[in-house]
Amino acid sequence: MLIDGKAMRTLWVDEPLGAVFIINQILLPHAFRIERLESLVDAATAIRDMQVRGAPLIGVTAAYGVALAMRADSSDVGLKQAVDVLRATRPTAVNLHWALRRCLTALAHLPAPARLVAAYALAATMAEEDVRLNSAIGDHGVALLRDLAARKNGRLNILTHCNAGWLATIDWGTATAPIYKAFADGIDLHVWVDETRPRNQGASLTAFELGHQGVPHTIIVDNAGGHLMQHGEVDCVIVGTDRTTAAGDVCNKIGTYLKALAAQDNNVPFYVAAPSPSIDFSLENGVRDIPIECRSAREITHMAGHDGAGVAEVRITPAGSPAHNPAFDVTPARLVTGLITERGVVAAERQALAALFPERVI
Amino acid sequence: MLIDGKAMRTLWVDEPLGAVFIINQILLPHAFRIERLESLVDAATAIRDMQVRGAPLIGVTAAYGVALAMRADSSDVGLKQAVDVLRATRPTAVNLHWALRRCLTALAHLPAPARLVAAYALAATMAEEDVRLNSAIGDHGVALLRDLAARKNGRLNILTHCNAGWLATIDWGTATAPIYKAFADGIDLHVWVDETRPRNQGASLTAFELGHQGVPHTIIVDNAGGHLMQHGEVDCVIVGTDRTTAAGDVCNKIGTYLKALAAQDNNVPFYVAAPSPSIDFSLENGVRDIPIECRSAREITHMAGHDGAGVAEVRITPAGSPAHNPAFDVTPARLVTGLITERGVVAAERQALAALFPERVI
Repeated sequence: MLIDGKAMRTLWVDEPLGAVFIINQILLPHAFRIERLESLVDAATAIRDMQVRGAPLIGVTAAYGVALAMRADSSDVGLKQAVDVLRATRPTAVNLHWALRRCLTALAHLPAPARLVAAYALAATMAEEDVRLNSAIGDHGVALLRDLAARKNGRLNILTHCNAGWLATIDWGTATAPIYKAFADGIDLHVWVDETRPRNQGASLTAFELGHQGVPHTIIVDNAGGHLMQHGEVDCVIVGTDRTTAAGDVCNKIGTYLKALAAQDNNVPFYVAAPSPSIDFSLENGVRDIPIECRSAREITHMAGHDGAGVAEVRITPAGSPAHNPAFDVTPARLVTGLITERGVVAAERQALAALFPERVI
Repeated sequence: MLIDGKAMRTLWVDEPLGAVFIINQILLPHAFRIERLESLVDAATAIRDMQVRGAPLIGVTAAYGVALAMRADSSDVGLKQAVDVLRATRPTAVNLHWALRRCLTALAHLPAPARLVAAYALAATMAEEDVRLNSAIGDHGVALLRDLAARKNGRLNILTHCNAGWLATIDWGTATAPIYKAFADGIDLHVWVDETRPRNQGASLTAFELGHQGVPHTIIVDNAGGHLMQHGEVDCVIVGTDRTTAAGDVCNKIGTYLKALAAQDNNVPFYVAAPSPSIDFSLENGVRDIPIECRSAREITHMAGHDGAGVAEVRITPAGSPAHNPAFDVTPARLVTGLITERGVVAAERQALAALFPERVI
């Protein structure tokens, strides 16, 4: 997608077997800086410090981290160390572990000298797979938006929560792919961007990328979506998912469930862009079975922003008051109008999902 | 209530016909400063700059503003000017206008020399009425909490949104009155404090006052309440109201509606502390009929906090992204378990409200 009018991805390699470049997302939206990763340690730092975030991007960065490690040491010991170091960066990131298992499976049986080229090739394949998958989600989702637009006089208003945008993937994003494709097709649309406390990924990342793409958008606080729906100002919701159960329950950024309730109460379609790797066919009841990570209270008690001179952090709560920070919630399938997968839009229920992805059913 | 162990109100007079003292709430929770109001201009500034906020406290401050004005000029011109200046400070604050009308009605027919003493007496009466009213809400609400506690093994978890606390009133608060009385009675309780974006009145004011009172509490982002309810971590919700319709619809801080939806979805009782002055018997359908004030986008795009040296403001959104800031939303009566009024707990519906306040029915 575009940054200052120039097409970019979130991660790229300039020359064969060379350094890996990423956008340092910690600094967004206040500064745009590209980081050059030369080593396993660079890649691990980028993931651990959240310079890259979003499940697909973390996975591909980890694969390139293995490739960078192979430049220094492609022995069995070097391969195992690379996987161990990268796995420890984000212990609860499912996609990271999946990507590393895939690298290990592909590389372990090769002779050491062959691993470098194979690791770069595998990482590149994973990046391309992500782009194709998101593009397909965009194609299926844009059909939904076209239908909604055809039934409406005037601008289509789409609400999204958090950042399931291209910055969380290699390109296109998941929830944003239909939006970018619809916008490119000339559909008159506008996006309500939930701020998404506590990490503000909506206000800082989604707004940033929509702005650079030229997509009309407005930032709102997470509290506002229900009110807008009551007054007919939201035509549909599209969010991403971190984990989807076989029954169609959706685990996504905290607060997604509240928007789904409001959508249901106001007959607003609630779609989830769900790439099939997010679907965990071993899980049924999301509220009961998906463990929810609690992150640092500091994400709530402190806030980073630009103070005119640079990025500064301020404390926004009383010194003595504790905070509790569950990072995700689960939206029950009954509140989901449809899952937008790379194979098409599907009802959020077991049989429909199993029919669309028969090879994944356990 | 308590500040550093000392009982205080939000507004007081030290000597007969003397200066009026308030807590400067803009600086909370980062600094505690008392302001001395000596004149009409001081009082108008305190209201306009939101040094005092909350409907009841604004009303009483305005009444004292009229009294301070009478010290300088108790003529008809002086009285009219005082009311005009104070009315212009917060054009949409219903309680402010009600308080000023009451002052005008009481004072206009008096001879000018009698107005000073009468204005102070009226302001004091209005302050005492507010305290009595909130205390009565506390007494009725504490019975609900006692029942809930009796049915539960272990600590009672109450969720609240925004600040309907003593800082918004003269004392006790509305939504907090039952909590403070239950805590004083020894009921084992804990309060989930919604941060309440964009002005953060939960994180900065409710957490501050609960902390000084010693009430166990935890700050959460506005996104988290639904998740906590799904997991049985919320036993009841108590919020305030800015305006209540004859049918029991509740207009309160933006985001209240989302919590009400989540409470309904999880069978959590949702109570609204509704002093009768908040009930507007001329209104029926809140979503349709209550105009919602949109406040400055800067409340969303910028955030104030303590940077270690003092209070600083940082920008938290991309420079080019607009923001939209509706300040309130309406929770339909069907989502409200009960209204806690000064005359008792009542169903949020026309007949029950009319029976409890027959003299108010239009």
